[in-house]
Amino acid sequence: MKAFQDYYPDDLAHCLGCGRLNAHGHQLRSFWNGDVSEARYTPKAFETSLPGFVSGGLLASLVDCHGTGTASAAAYRAEGREMDTLPAHRFVTASLRVDYLRPTPLGPELLLEGHVRSVSGRKVVVEISLSVGQVTTVRGEVVAVEMPDSMRPATSLPK
Amino acid sequence: MKAFQDYYPDDLAHCLGCGRLNAHGHQLRSFWNGDVSEARYTPKAFETSLPGFVSGGLLASLVDCHGTGTASAAAYRAEGREMDTLPAHRFVTASLRVDYLRPTPLGPELLLEGHVRSVSGRKVVVEISLSVGQVTTVRGEVVAVEMPDSMRPATSLPK
Repeated sequence: MKAFQDYYPDDLAHCLGCGRLNAHGHQLRSFWNGDVSEARYTPKAFETSLPGFVSGGLLASLVDCHGTGTASAAAYRAEGREMDTLPAHRFVTASLRVDYLRPTPLGPELLLEGHVRSVSGRKVVVEISLSVGQVTTVRGEVVAVEMPDSMRPATSLPK
Repeated sequence: MKAFQDYYPDDLAHCLGCGRLNAHGHQLRSFWNGDVSEARYTPKAFETSLPGFVSGGLLASLVDCHGTGTASAAAYRAEGREMDTLPAHRFVTASLRVDYLRPTPLGPELLLEGHVRSVSGRKVVVEISLSVGQVTTVRGEVVAVEMPDSMRPATSLPK
């Protein structure tokens, strides 16, 4: 199954958090499960904060990229078109909030779940929860905006 | 000159963002410049978001670790003691907010500046700006709390 991020054009697919072409990155992959977007990630041993726990910075990065990926997918849905149609949506983050409810243990797979709160013009707001097993350890909110043309490589501009 | 993070006990110095003992991490180092805390970081080529720009997740991680480091240093200052005295302060993040004002170009050194807004009990609030040259690209706020004993390795507990 193709992830949201698999639809990003190649020259927009190098992000540290979710770029499928970034060999050093986290390569986060997000999918719809009904109206909820889901992504799973198992942190590496060095992605730690204090011994036994996951880095808060890494968690913020996962929330960020799951948020912009979900925003992109939500924008296609709002327009009633498939993700393989042009022009390609690609969102960037205007604002990120992450609340660390409790320490996230290092080792098990993490589940991110995104809920789209609004789609309005070029802006999408996504709420995200991150859990380990049945325990929610992080809640976040991403305010995502369509990537401005000034950030878009010339090759990705619509013909 | 020793950075705030150089005073973290060895077993608390493996953080992805600022652990001096994490060979795969960013090894962020923070210092006082008067009442402002400063840290500098030059992102690696793969720490990108869109081509030519720095990963928002990485920026969040830098804000996070500069915030907790500043919180620790501020706690010592509030107690009128040096950072090489015991017990060691070590803060974790309760809440992180990052506003991306404009894209952060990839290449130049980044400067993080922290302003301590409050020190109360086990909680410290730090506002952070991140700039490239004269341009501020990111503003953030870290609400940091003293690490709970439940996260502390037994070897770091006060004797």
